[in-house]
Amino acid sequence: MSKLFMFEKPLGMRDTLPALFEQKKQVKQQLADEISGWGYQYMATPTLEYYETVGHASAILDQQLFKLLDKEGHTLVLRPDVTTPIARVAASKLLKNIPLRLAYEANVFRAQQREGGRPAEFEQIGVELIGERTSSSDAEVIALMIDALKRTGLRSFKVAIGHIGFVNSLFLEIVGNEERANVLRRFLYEKNYVGYRNHVKSLNLSSIDKQRLLQLLNLRGNEMKITEAMELVENEVGKQAASELQKLWQMLDAYGVTEEIKIDFNLVSHMSYYTGILFEVFAENVGFHIGNGGRYDKLLEKFESKTPATGFGIQLDRLIEALGEEAYEPSPVYCILYSQERLEEALIAAKQKRTEGNRVVMQDIVGVDDVDAFTEPFEDVTYLIGKKGKGAE
Amino acid sequence: MSKLFMFEKPLGMRDTLPALFEQKKQVKQQLADEISGWGYQYMATPTLEYYETVGHASAILDQQLFKLLDKEGHTLVLRPDVTTPIARVAASKLLKNIPLRLAYEANVFRAQQREGGRPAEFEQIGVELIGERTSSSDAEVIALMIDALKRTGLRSFKVAIGHIGFVNSLFLEIVGNEERANVLRRFLYEKNYVGYRNHVKSLNLSSIDKQRLLQLLNLRGNEMKITEAMELVENEVGKQAASELQKLWQMLDAYGVTEEIKIDFNLVSHMSYYTGILFEVFAENVGFHIGNGGRYDKLLEKFESKTPATGFGIQLDRLIEALGEEAYEPSPVYCILYSQERLEEALIAAKQKRTEGNRVVMQDIVGVDDVDAFTEPFEDVTYLIGKKGKGAE
Repeated sequence: MSKLFMFEKPLGMRDTLPALFEQKKQVKQQLADEISGWGYQYMATPTLEYYETVGHASAILDQQLFKLLDKEGHTLVLRPDVTTPIARVAASKLLKNIPLRLAYEANVFRAQQREGGRPAEFEQIGVELIGERTSSSDAEVIALMIDALKRTGLRSFKVAIGHIGFVNSLFLEIVGNEERANVLRRFLYEKNYVGYRNHVKSLNLSSIDKQRLLQLLNLRGNEMKITEAMELVENEVGKQAASELQKLWQMLDAYGVTEEIKIDFNLVSHMSYYTGILFEVFAENVGFHIGNGGRYDKLLEKFESKTPATGFGIQLDRLIEALGEEAYEPSPVYCILYSQERLEEALIAAKQKRTEGNRVVMQDIVGVDDVDAFTEPFEDVTYLIGKKGKGAE
Repeated sequence: MSKLFMFEKPLGMRDTLPALFEQKKQVKQQLADEISGWGYQYMATPTLEYYETVGHASAILDQQLFKLLDKEGHTLVLRPDVTTPIARVAASKLLKNIPLRLAYEANVFRAQQREGGRPAEFEQIGVELIGERTSSSDAEVIALMIDALKRTGLRSFKVAIGHIGFVNSLFLEIVGNEERANVLRRFLYEKNYVGYRNHVKSLNLSSIDKQRLLQLLNLRGNEMKITEAMELVENEVGKQAASELQKLWQMLDAYGVTEEIKIDFNLVSHMSYYTGILFEVFAENVGFHIGNGGRYDKLLEKFESKTPATGFGIQLDRLIEALGEEAYEPSPVYCILYSQERLEEALIAAKQKRTEGNRVVMQDIVGVDDVDAFTEPFEDVTYLIGKKGKGAE
């Protein structure tokens, strides 16, 4: 193999070195403690799925899928999300006992088109509450997400909550068809509000309707915005959506988490399977959302089961970025440097220290070329070298 | 999508439902506690690697690799082992501070040719001790593996230890070339001892040499077999290999783990990168080895670094099979079934119980169709329904 190529990894693929691995593991455990505490059960699905089933249902763009062929010529994909495979499993095996509370921690895959620092493989931690249409279930997953994030030590984050049903019905009411509504949605999805304004001004609509479309951009803030939304929309579906958000807010207030919440009726997700409330979590200093979720009442239909569901997913890398490396204190490692004749003594010393909960490396001195370099990272080094009572100690 | 196809997974791919997931997680944590306790540092590598680098070096048969093409036409593989990617990372980034103690828990992938219950994706937990040629390092990884397995509660297992250098030099000494040695090795690898005997009898060799080749089959048992091996082989490389095993045995005796060990000079691995001692762990009731390892002093050369190394890998699924499902006691989950007007009361009760370390599901009664079926799995159910003091409690 060529020398330059030898150490390379495919585009967007990354190694996780020990310090980062330990920090990730600790954060995952903190999230898992909270998620398990709320009675959610972790499960796992395979890395490879059929393109025709999970690949199609996953709502990830085709060009972002890693595809390969199996021996029979079927197209397989590397799992592009976890919600869809869990929907597959739930619909086929687990619906006897709903509502169902499931959780996962898994890598997902998105092929990258060019160099740009975007990961092609990243870890998600999330929950799915399957089989329930109530606001209680939406409130539960949002409150759980907030408590789980707090448990990791994350400070200063906000959860923006919107309702895709509200946006859809308002657009349809004003612009009349899905095609035109789509154009507006895309501006919101891209958070391109200047583009949205210009596009609205160019539309062939009454000035009142244009004003209403522009008014949507102001529907971001505290719970007062829900009342404003209720007044902006005229159709029943839209009013119903706003009142769902009202109900949700009240429940989240009971959960004691409204300090982290802001209402955002401009929220639109690229995950086409969301049907009701949807939300995104933002932390200071991180450009992208660190987690998101919402209600997806139509996804299980793709697996022949009319079952509503709601859930969230957290992107571990972005959460770690928000927490900062300084948030993590690696556990100290001790070293016992021994020579052959004192192996048994070294074993007893190591066992003792490990029993007390310490991490202890035992190292035969013969295996070390540069003692200074080798011992540098350790908290403390014990030398058991040469005959007892004679050699250095 | 067709109804039959909808719930299917690609050949050899499996879902892990909650009970098994929890058991696996617990066992992984027990292994990690021991492995971290010995100062090994966990790290991770990507799921996808270049075929030309890691794919080639991994010693996995080409037909067992999952391959795909990236946008530039390079062939990628799904990680077929973890030792090779870790060798890549170590050689490129981590050799400043050797010996290096690394660990991993990762899924590996092997394409299956037909239905047969063999998994195409399975989880391995292992360690690599890189940068040391001593018997101390071989003894350390074997003793660590045994202590880690004991920590999971595994009883009645044996570690068979052999030396590929001994087998190779004995064969070369007697049959004269690699091609003929390969045929003999294959019988041993397949544990086809009848085939081996028949083949030896058919060879054009002196009866003394035939007897020596047959004698190899008896070199399985306690440490006395090392002395017999020393007498069977005539060349220095072979004698050196046997004396390495002698040294190893003594050190493992100091570690107090020889009760789990048997010597097996018939051991041959399919992993072509092993160069010295090698070993396999067998547990009662499981047909395949549940873990294996050995010394691989030539692998890092493929990444331009003449660095010796030794390590082991444990196959989690087989370890779980050996432990048995009955070994695992799932943690109980409590349920609070509430109605809207008593949400705050339910929240206080849940928080209290969770603070005490319990798992508690909160469920709005409106979301439940069949209360009996829903509440059946829980350890205990608290009803907070209707107005306080009026409804059932």
